[in-house]
Amino acid sequence: MAKQIRYDHFLHGGDYNPEQWLDRPDILKKDIEYFKKAHINTVSMGMFSWAVLEPEEDRYNFDWLEDVINNLYKEGIYTILSTPSGARPKWMADKYEEVLRVDPDRTRRFFGGRHNHCYTSPVYREKIYNINKKLSEHFGKHPAVILWHISNEYGGECHCPLCQEKFREWLKEKYGTIENLNSSWCTTFWSHTYNSFDQIESPSPKGENALHALTLDWKRFVTDRTVDFMRHEISAIRAGGSELPATANLMYDYDGLDYKKFKDVMDIVSWDNYPSWHKKDEYTTAVDGAMQHDLMRSIRKAPFLLMESCPSATNWKPINKLKKPGMHLAASLQAVAHGSDSVLYFQLRQSQGASEKFHGAVIDHYGGDDTRVFREVTEVGEALEQIREIVGSEIKCQAAVLYDRENDWALKDAQGPRNEDMHYQECVQKQYRALRRKGCNMDIITMEHDLSDYKLVTVPMAYMFYHGYAEKLCTFAENGGTLVISYWSGLVDETDKCYLEGTPHGLMEAAGIRTEEIDALYDWEENHGIPETGNHLGITKSYTCKNLCELAKVSDAEVMMRYSEDFYQGYPVLTHKKYGKGHVYYVAADMEAAFYEDFLGRAADEAGVDTPLDFVPEGVSVTTRETEDTEYLFIQNFAGKTETVSVSEEYEVIYGTDSENMSPLQTRILKRKK
Amino acid sequence: MAKQIRYDHFLHGGDYNPEQWLDRPDILKKDIEYFKKAHINTVSMGMFSWAVLEPEEDRYNFDWLEDVINNLYKEGIYTILSTPSGARPKWMADKYEEVLRVDPDRTRRFFGGRHNHCYTSPVYREKIYNINKKLSEHFGKHPAVILWHISNEYGGECHCPLCQEKFREWLKEKYGTIENLNSSWCTTFWSHTYNSFDQIESPSPKGENALHALTLDWKRFVTDRTVDFMRHEISAIRAGGSELPATANLMYDYDGLDYKKFKDVMDIVSWDNYPSWHKKDEYTTAVDGAMQHDLMRSIRKAPFLLMESCPSATNWKPINKLKKPGMHLAASLQAVAHGSDSVLYFQLRQSQGASEKFHGAVIDHYGGDDTRVFREVTEVGEALEQIREIVGSEIKCQAAVLYDRENDWALKDAQGPRNEDMHYQECVQKQYRALRRKGCNMDIITMEHDLSDYKLVTVPMAYMFYHGYAEKLCTFAENGGTLVISYWSGLVDETDKCYLEGTPHGLMEAAGIRTEEIDALYDWEENHGIPETGNHLGITKSYTCKNLCELAKVSDAEVMMRYSEDFYQGYPVLTHKKYGKGHVYYVAADMEAAFYEDFLGRAADEAGVDTPLDFVPEGVSVTTRETEDTEYLFIQNFAGKTETVSVSEEYEVIYGTDSENMSPLQTRILKRKK
Amino acid sequence: MAKQIRYDHFLHGGDYNPEQWLDRPDILKKDIEYFKKAHINTVSMGMFSWAVLEPEEDRYNFDWLEDVINNLYKEGIYTILSTPSGARPKWMADKYEEVLRVDPDRTRRFFGGRHNHCYTSPVYREKIYNINKKLSEHFGKHPAVILWHISNEYGGECHCPLCQEKFREWLKEKYGTIENLNSSWCTTFWSHTYNSFDQIESPSPKGENALHALTLDWKRFVTDRTVDFMRHEISAIRAGGSELPATANLMYDYDGLDYKKFKDVMDIVSWDNYPSWHKKDEYTTAVDGAMQHDLMRSIRKAPFLLMESCPSATNWKPINKLKKPGMHLAASLQAVAHGSDSVLYFQLRQSQGASEKFHGAVIDHYGGDDTRVFREVTEVGEALEQIREIVGSEIKCQAAVLYDRENDWALKDAQGPRNEDMHYQECVQKQYRALRRKGCNMDIITMEHDLSDYKLVTVPMAYMFYHGYAEKLCTFAENGGTLVISYWSGLVDETDKCYLEGTPHGLMEAAGIRTEEIDALYDWEENHGIPETGNHLGITKSYTCKNLCELAKVSDAEVMMRYSEDFYQGYPVLTHKKYGKGHVYYVAADMEAAFYEDFLGRAADEAGVDTPLDFVPEGVSVTTRETEDTEYLFIQNFAGKTETVSVSEEYEVIYGTDSENMSPLQTRILKRKK
Ligand SMILES: [Zn+2]
Ligand SMILES: [Zn+2]
Ligand SMILES: [Zn+2]
Repeated sequence: MAKQIRYDHFLHGGDYNPEQWLDRPDILKKDIEYFKKAHINTVSMGMFSWAVLEPEEDRYNFDWLEDVINNLYKEGIYTILSTPSGARPKWMADKYEEVLRVDPDRTRRFFGGRHNHCYTSPVYREKIYNINKKLSEHFGKHPAVILWHISNEYGGECHCPLCQEKFREWLKEKYGTIENLNSSWCTTFWSHTYNSFDQIESPSPKGENALHALTLDWKRFVTDRTVDFMRHEISAIRAGGSELPATANLMYDYDGLDYKKFKDVMDIVSWDNYPSWHKKDEYTTAVDGAMQHDLMRSIRKAPFLLMESCPSATNWKPINKLKKPGMHLAASLQAVAHGSDSVLYFQLRQSQGASEKFHGAVIDHYGGDDTRVFREVTEVGEALEQIREIVGSEIKCQAAVLYDRENDWALKDAQGPRNEDMHYQECVQKQYRALRRKGCNMDIITMEHDLSDYKLVTVPMAYMFYHGYAEKLCTFAENGGTLVISYWSGLVDETDKCYLEGTPHGLMEAAGIRTEEIDALYDWEENHGIPETGNHLGITKSYTCKNLCELAKVSDAEVMMRYSEDFYQGYPVLTHKKYGKGHVYYVAADMEAAFYEDFLGRAADEAGVDTPLDFVPEGVSVTTRETEDTEYLFIQNFAGKTETVSVSEEYEVIYGTDSENMSPLQTRILKRKK
Repeated sequence: MAKQIRYDHFLHGGDYNPEQWLDRPDILKKDIEYFKKAHINTVSMGMFSWAVLEPEEDRYNFDWLEDVINNLYKEGIYTILSTPSGARPKWMADKYEEVLRVDPDRTRRFFGGRHNHCYTSPVYREKIYNINKKLSEHFGKHPAVILWHISNEYGGECHCPLCQEKFREWLKEKYGTIENLNSSWCTTFWSHTYNSFDQIESPSPKGENALHALTLDWKRFVTDRTVDFMRHEISAIRAGGSELPATANLMYDYDGLDYKKFKDVMDIVSWDNYPSWHKKDEYTTAVDGAMQHDLMRSIRKAPFLLMESCPSATNWKPINKLKKPGMHLAASLQAVAHGSDSVLYFQLRQSQGASEKFHGAVIDHYGGDDTRVFREVTEVGEALEQIREIVGSEIKCQAAVLYDRENDWALKDAQGPRNEDMHYQECVQKQYRALRRKGCNMDIITMEHDLSDYKLVTVPMAYMFYHGYAEKLCTFAENGGTLVISYWSGLVDETDKCYLEGTPHGLMEAAGIRTEEIDALYDWEENHGIPETGNHLGITKSYTCKNLCELAKVSDAEVMMRYSEDFYQGYPVLTHKKYGKGHVYYVAADMEAAFYEDFLGRAADEAGVDTPLDFVPEGVSVTTRETEDTEYLFIQNFAGKTETVSVSEEYEVIYGTDSENMSPLQTRILKRKK
Repeated sequence: MAKQIRYDHFLHGGDYNPEQWLDRPDILKKDIEYFKKAHINTVSMGMFSWAVLEPEEDRYNFDWLEDVINNLYKEGIYTILSTPSGARPKWMADKYEEVLRVDPDRTRRFFGGRHNHCYTSPVYREKIYNINKKLSEHFGKHPAVILWHISNEYGGECHCPLCQEKFREWLKEKYGTIENLNSSWCTTFWSHTYNSFDQIESPSPKGENALHALTLDWKRFVTDRTVDFMRHEISAIRAGGSELPATANLMYDYDGLDYKKFKDVMDIVSWDNYPSWHKKDEYTTAVDGAMQHDLMRSIRKAPFLLMESCPSATNWKPINKLKKPGMHLAASLQAVAHGSDSVLYFQLRQSQGASEKFHGAVIDHYGGDDTRVFREVTEVGEALEQIREIVGSEIKCQAAVLYDRENDWALKDAQGPRNEDMHYQECVQKQYRALRRKGCNMDIITMEHDLSDYKLVTVPMAYMFYHGYAEKLCTFAENGGTLVISYWSGLVDETDKCYLEGTPHGLMEAAGIRTEEIDALYDWEENHGIPETGNHLGITKSYTCKNLCELAKVSDAEVMMRYSEDFYQGYPVLTHKKYGKGHVYYVAADMEAAFYEDFLGRAADEAGVDTPLDFVPEGVSVTTRETEDTEYLFIQNFAGKTETVSVSEEYEVIYGTDSENMSPLQTRILKRKK
């Protein structure tokens, strides 16, 4: 069972690299003074300190770190301690080549960068085990240390012979016999049949790269290897005696790993959020970040930590824009609104050199506290203290949208119908945004999530159905749930093998339709969905569709909308069927966002999904967190102009103005007894 | 001499992969039932079956294939049998690394994909020899088997040491002495002189890549190696006792091989056609495909086979669009109109997995015959039976356009004048389209083709003239032919060495002009050709030119059009000279398509090129096939609206409506006694 | 001390490759006849002749070269003799692999191309030493030979083990201890600390590539290696007995080398100029070339040689446009106007094959002298004879703009604030153009240049300040100079390590401002600078800024312009401070070109920068050269229409029309006694 994580206050602070300033004690001292001033109560350390912590093989040097931890702790500042596996010392790479990663073309990388190690290498595993254990022994019971931060932004893959061998073992365990693997992978195609597991190699641009089942299993293996490596890291910490909880910082929509597999290995989810504010309209950026917050929270269906965010401009994007006044506070509170128990930054003090020296920081090269950024960070610290009672509260959702990484992998690797872009994430996000617009909390779920808590579940572009997943969806609808299926769903099983005898597999009866063909549109083409008079939900407007238009044959469903053009004019765009105690809707085309707001808004009402407000103006974001007896209501105005948001009288303001007229970027937080 | 190919009916069917369904006898049985229903009379098999046919080294398993062939034959369905060299088994690549290809950077590929073998490897040659011979022994006299399909879409190149060695031998044979090679290749430039043949290496992005003569000879060598490999494959079949004809399936405008060199090694040409219908206007797509059909037919100046086409949407293009109703039938009959004796598909039944699982097929994953695609395929089958008498008839041409792959290679590899794009194919196609618009049949010829059959020959952008080619063109004109030369012609010989003393080499006398300079235009620039009053052909309109404008000096020719702008205003754009019994025209600039319709239309009339119709509406395609005593007239409407096409009363309708009003995508086929 | 270079006439001629025509004595003879006709007095030879000069190891063959030199000399034509290191013979690469270059991925290139040798290889150094010495012995005292042309367009880098070893030595010499290097490079970041110099490897895309200080030192090392190699080449020439001066031909804005480091190794600077005339308006192209001429001249602050230029169209650009009539003459005289003592071409006769066969030449494949190009070349020869008295005269400048390659490297490699494009060169060029527009001569200087000659110095985007550079700038202003600093200046020291405590480092006092933040704008964004009423220079117009907007805090300066928009509306865009006897201006944003014309025009007037004309029409270029007692005034009309340029009566026309009305592309050259 996971360690219980529950802080009695929000964590505020972030990445801190005192090892860069050991020759400047005046600066280290000044830092603490500034932290206090900015209401910073937590720092993350050690992430990239391996070369300082173990400057030569088996010679450890922890004193400087202990001093810093103690000095901070004296001033009430806690430490999140990292394991240093994210970047290894040069001496190790020089002595043990095997710790470095091998690329898909089978050439080994040279020392450099980060994320450049083999997860399988016995040497690397031994080295990280030793230092993690020592760190645990040394700091694991220090009262200042509150959490283990395992490695940094796990990612990437290694194709070395050691990893190849592990991959073969993994496959053997999964498939048992080579005949079973051949059959599951359809290797007869292009004569790619394997005679034995020994013959299998990882995908490569210089070799096998179009056997989708191989690619898919390789990606799964990479996730499993990474999880296994993380378990290994934690086992060293446990061996060192520390029982503190552990996390790993995840990344925005990262498709190199299937994060759902990290659910059990980490005690609390944390992630790094770097939105590009002021590039598009603020609400669009806000929704995009909100979906990721919800995705991260849904992994464990529990509060998470915002482990990194930028107090100012980043330095690694094409254009690194300043945050306008108020943006930093709004973005920080948005994380809390979606379930974060922290606002942490990369970085507290800017490094003087190397590749991230111009990445925004609480304290910049100038080194003063009389900066705009320092003032805005301080405001966040003050706000978090003001709303301290909210820490640890939960988020309850009655609606969920399926966004599964395995589906994403399979769908994108498949050839056809639209290799240019299938617009999978966009489709998910259009559905998410439509429901978020109503002010209802949302989970972002995978095929493994239990559905029984929800009233409404949408399943956009669910190309891959695990065996049994269709039954799970049917049961959900039969029991009274509203199920929204879309085009390009239920085509293949978990080995990317096509289901025969019609699609969406296992749902043709429930939806009352079968798909016959799918048309791909050029970017300059469009079609339209025209509502049928008197349709089930009373939709009256027409909407545009693009990219993909499925041709479905109705067996037993109400056609609610039909195509207006092309040879499939009159074919269904939206259908409905009452199924068991619930409803099943089918969307046949890639509809515009406004369609989903209209359709899903009505479907959510029909499904009885609760919302805290009667009306939410466009551009305003609404979420709730709750404890056993209290509900906290977050209202944030990302609309770009003043909006009036009426709230029922039972709510009491705990942060922000009393007025219901909210200026741009303003946040109000209210509460009511349940 | 080539084997005589003459079927008494059109072949209808295509690629079939029963090895993917050996555990599903119910499906194999159902397939035959469906084939009969769709008027399918021929299947191609074995193309990617090596791993099933020889699952372990020297252990062969042909029983399953024999069963399938027999079962099909019982129902009147013939088999085209493939040699399996297109994809090799894993065991072979693992045991004999040399069978895999080496890339230009000299690294060997890993097992995977297709088209990944060394054409030189003695091992690979032995392995393919053995299995081909056995296939021949086993199936070569089976009454169901009608044709050998050698490998699949030959292509690509290998830079392994074995191939390097062969390349050196090839060069030695070609040039005799290293001094001769040095002189031909101009190696003095940049000090690249070779002391011996041993020093020569194939071109590489990491080494020699700007010695054009080397690159050109390497490309020729690759073609020769491939032809040699195909000869080797066929020799095994002959050794096995089969005397059936052989083909190899060629590809759309494929520039990796010089297809003219395959003329003698294959008994009949076949090719794979995957046009992107509905992307541009239908007629543009139709012309593009028509030119390829004509190119393929011109290789042997004989009917060919459409070996692959897609019954529905492909899966490997950026956007894989459905064919609208009627498109499949029109496209299939277009192939016949241009000389095909077959309509064959990839694929008859969709594979359940791997990279082409979503490629269109006669029978899809759903598996029923109640689909739109199945119905349209059936229509094609019925049509082919209705016009059966046309099979084997010839196409006669009085006009031809030069489109030579060696010229294409040299022209594109040359540096200057316009490295961004010389628009060679576009120029060829504008001339082709202009003449096709009149309804006259066209050959697409190479420098090796005999010219004596033609009344009109156009030579667009013929940068390279083999030694003697200019004389061949002169003789053609002297004897009464109309010769149309363009800018950027006659600059280099077959080693890409510049002719001295003026260009177009060997034609300055015949054309009455000499080119002095060539201007390259930016994409946003244009000039115009203005007709001279009373010019030889009575042209009255002005036309735009772009990209390339040559400055020619007239010695003895009529200037028909002149530039309207820039410092070369007044210089000739179009000239004419009466030469011997014929005419020589020179086009100095990259003129727009409308110019060629006007100019070549008039030149063809002058030359006496026959056309079956007096008037062809824009967007309508007209071709003829003929036997000793009968002419078959194909009229297809690709115009996008109804067109009236008047036909002389001597024609009798054998397919399509009696009415001269043709709806979009309609085809009419008529005949008359000659 | 550098050899004295002073010819008594302009050099006219260029690259000549008789080794390509040794079997055509008729052509070699014809060439001389043509050279005389075109007033060609100088040829460059031997650049790519190694394979002919040393066809086998240690067997030399100089006879052919001696014959050609003698034959030319008999007709009064001089020879610039090249060392042949630019391209090595095949036998050498085959026998000694180490002479070929190793790429950043640590794979060695194969033989081919040019610029493909290791500058460290003892073998290569020995081979080039031997042949250079022999060439020197043989030709070094020949009266026809006037200059050594060392190698050809030095460039590129080698990552072989020999070079790696030299790099480590170089670093050891520079930093002394590894601790010092670690601290200077900030290697603590990402745990990249080195334990010893032995551990250091050159940057690689497969390894370390974001440690900016490493990358920067590697680039410096590459320059030092190249300079060292050039010294080595020259030492062989000296050992062979020749005391003739030496040059190397440099390239347009080449960022692979820091040309300022070649100042002392070459006796005279020469460079190769290939502008893309007629792509943009002529004046824009003219300014671009002018800045390069000035940059080249500023390296040694002395006349230079135009070593290569194209008499017609190039063949290696995307679009190779013909020069319109008059362009060649105007471009040739522009070089002279900016300090060139030659007009030399690549190439005199077109090669018959290989990659540059279509590069423009004085004599083309046609081979006649009745061509437009030949006539225009002859005009240049005549003009150079007409203005012969100008040869050797100097250019004096009172204004300079800083454009330092090390700054360029560091600025571009840095991450942030705008990785898409910082527009450094554009910013420099806008300032250069603004001052050139007034008709004042300009130097393009580096951080190493002495400033005491100048009245006005602009320092655009001077991201890197060597330690002490700020003091140098302050002293310049204190002593009465006008200093113009811009945004993104003074951030890092020479190891790319950020200065702490505020920027622009060392100039906050002098400028009276400190920068606080910098905003990066998307391409579709802009802001504006609005002048303050009554500002110091009387600027009254508003101007647009894009890309980068700095937020500066004023301590002690006059704000002359302010931002009009965004949250930093009202922040300064332009400030002024009287400092010592001079002025310091600060420009906070990337302003449009018109701003600089307005602002720098006024600032130059204030600074008392002299200009030869009272008014220069837009599009007209004005420069002066001078001897002890005479000033030569060049006026060139690049405006695209006739312009009237009034000149004081003290000037006398020595070239061009008497009229002050100048047609497009016309040049007038006048002189006056000083
Ligand atoms: Zn590994
Ligand atoms: Zn090979
Ligand atoms: Zn080297």
